[in-house]
Amino acid sequence: MSVYAAYSHIANNLGAPPFLPLNRDRVGDVPLVNLTGGVPAADILPYESYSQAVGRVLGNPATAFSSVSYVSPFGIQELREQVAHWRGVPVENVLVTNGAMNGIFLAAQTLIDPGDTVLVESPTFPFALNIFRRAGARLESIALHAGGIDLDELEQRLREGRRYKLFYTIPDFQNPAGTLTSAEHKSRLLALADRYGFAVIADNPYRELWFDHEPDGFPDDYRHAERYSPLYEIGTFSKTLGPGWRVGWTIASSDVVQRMSVIRACVDGNSTALGQYAISCLLQEPYWFDRLLEAERALYRGRAQALVSALRTGFGDAVAFDEPRGGFFLWLGLPQGIRIDDPHVQDALARQNVLVTRGDSFAPEQPGRDPAHRDYADHVRIGFSALPERDLREGADRLAAALIGLA
Amino acid sequence: MSVYAAYSHIANNLGAPPFLPLNRDRVGDVPLVNLTGGVPAADILPYESYSQAVGRVLGNPATAFSSVSYVSPFGIQELREQVAHWRGVPVENVLVTNGAMNGIFLAAQTLIDPGDTVLVESPTFPFALNIFRRAGARLESIALHAGGIDLDELEQRLREGRRYKLFYTIPDFQNPAGTLTSAEHKSRLLALADRYGFAVIADNPYRELWFDHEPDGFPDDYRHAERYSPLYEIGTFSKTLGPGWRVGWTIASSDVVQRMSVIRACVDGNSTALGQYAISCLLQEPYWFDRLLEAERALYRGRAQALVSALRTGFGDAVAFDEPRGGFFLWLGLPQGIRIDDPHVQDALARQNVLVTRGDSFAPEQPGRDPAHRDYADHVRIGFSALPERDLREGADRLAAALIGLA
Repeated sequence: MSVYAAYSHIANNLGAPPFLPLNRDRVGDVPLVNLTGGVPAADILPYESYSQAVGRVLGNPATAFSSVSYVSPFGIQELREQVAHWRGVPVENVLVTNGAMNGIFLAAQTLIDPGDTVLVESPTFPFALNIFRRAGARLESIALHAGGIDLDELEQRLREGRRYKLFYTIPDFQNPAGTLTSAEHKSRLLALADRYGFAVIADNPYRELWFDHEPDGFPDDYRHAERYSPLYEIGTFSKTLGPGWRVGWTIASSDVVQRMSVIRACVDGNSTALGQYAISCLLQEPYWFDRLLEAERALYRGRAQALVSALRTGFGDAVAFDEPRGGFFLWLGLPQGIRIDDPHVQDALARQNVLVTRGDSFAPEQPGRDPAHRDYADHVRIGFSALPERDLREGADRLAAALIGLA
Repeated sequence: MSVYAAYSHIANNLGAPPFLPLNRDRVGDVPLVNLTGGVPAADILPYESYSQAVGRVLGNPATAFSSVSYVSPFGIQELREQVAHWRGVPVENVLVTNGAMNGIFLAAQTLIDPGDTVLVESPTFPFALNIFRRAGARLESIALHAGGIDLDELEQRLREGRRYKLFYTIPDFQNPAGTLTSAEHKSRLLALADRYGFAVIADNPYRELWFDHEPDGFPDDYRHAERYSPLYEIGTFSKTLGPGWRVGWTIASSDVVQRMSVIRACVDGNSTALGQYAISCLLQEPYWFDRLLEAERALYRGRAQALVSALRTGFGDAVAFDEPRGGFFLWLGLPQGIRIDDPHVQDALARQNVLVTRGDSFAPEQPGRDPAHRDYADHVRIGFSALPERDLREGADRLAAALIGLA
């Protein structure tokens, strides 16, 4: 390597890709069924409304120039107010970000110094792990159960003197495990954060996409903090309006929001103005967003049910999973003895031309680092949001054909 | 401060705002003339074309979903190819970024470890200084002259054993000083970078907005590097199509582009897809961008000339400046003995209700750190891009009325 290409420590230690690749080629001429996606359904997004909103913003002399000019690093005031009103917080607590990922990054920058310990759920979203590692954090994990992590175990660790700079959680329709936490759980978690001095980054991209019941919220006294609160709530329009807008938000103390906005002035200045104005224009139309959300919930509920029923038909009792109650994913425990890191298993899936996301992609530990720890190679994540029910049934059938009797 | 609000070192050391505020209120009832802007002229941007392009992208089944979905962290292929073709480099050397600022940030992340020394021009763009400081860099500066820094002085420093991780330069229509560097200067700079092992971040947001002659380029053998080259060329559509799109680019070695794209996967994933598709759609129309650039060059040339002539009328020989040859700014040396950090001077400007950007905003040294060094309080930056010629003349008249005879 040339001397002038001497990279930074960060650039020289980029790590493995967050999602482990399936290392076998697929065979055969049947069309692929791709169950890896974490994207909205292409057939439900209202492109015509999007186009009209952009047209209105650019056709209105009051917004045309602003929508293609520099805007506040906090986000445009109209959109901040709409998010604040919708999420039930004061506007000073809302920062507009380039998607939820950018919220996690900026939160990490406000909190993490090299050597700080970040506690994460196991399994969890691997892109967040990358962000924390890149910021120089040491990672520690705590197992996820139905209903969230075991808060008794967390309290025990804290009582024993273990300290964390922050706890990263995906509180509702967790990615990949689909777990949902209750109001009591959220409240007790924040009380622990308050008492033992750690921040809580609550990454909640799927929150609006519930099937039967809206998830419980965090207690208001942590969400309306004028100065300091441990809570950083991260949301996004990526799963409801589309990730290509790159418009998300973070709800945090006004002081945190202030600092995050100054940091972003050294990252990219501000989020796209045109996207913010267009989304704000759409949200102004009474009930427009509510109606879209209702349609999306119905669509994803139907798709989840089709997948669940096909998996039960194909596998019977051979697999274990919780039925999704929202979000985009089903976390499938494979039949006894089957591991996704086994080349024979990968061969069998390739022969069926069906793609799923490897469970070990979501393990917080580096492979081989701690053999006592769960590696989740006995799980796969199935994304049901992007495919019609017919394809989901086909995918479930092929998974069963590949895996039943393989162990 | 609560223990859980313990911020990172970064968040606790956010520093002064990059532009020093004028600390006097303005008085009187005459309308403000604001000469601080670095934004395109609101009356030349083609909002109708923008709206149509977004409509075409969202109305086309081949692009509708992609334009609101996740896209490659490198940028969409169509736009990368268009930028590559236009700028005369292979597509592998092009990364799409969230504006030029994001390119500087990502370049800094690939290069800087805490303690590295970054060399900058004096004066220079303060937001870049913030990015380098935030990455933990020590800053050293080298004085800018007409035609760029003195490369003999740079070579002398290098021969004496001083070493830099990177040199940050704004090669054409420098912000704030307006200097332009020649092909020979660019070539010799890169030869020094090659020989002494430092990277060159060439931030060039104003490059396309020349008045009479297109600026010289960097030598092709540094711009087509398949693996390693010291050159990171940063460009943007912010000054030509509007900053609100948040679409810029970095041209660098394919290996650098690869690493920058992986880093951005931990910052925000990717740039806005809709903006990329819309701009790509606009660039497809033959001569559309060329015609817009021609109109912009003519408009800004006329505005610069109006400002220059009004300053000469108002000040005579009392001020010193080079006539702008492109870009958005005029760097005005104030009349002998007048300093912008003098409250009487600020009062005089406030009474005239005219705003300019303080020259000391562009000094690389922290105030008071090195008294031997230039602080540029004897300069102001005047932005001429955003105001009609009438307002520029009015602004120049008011500046003269405020400052003549004040020393």
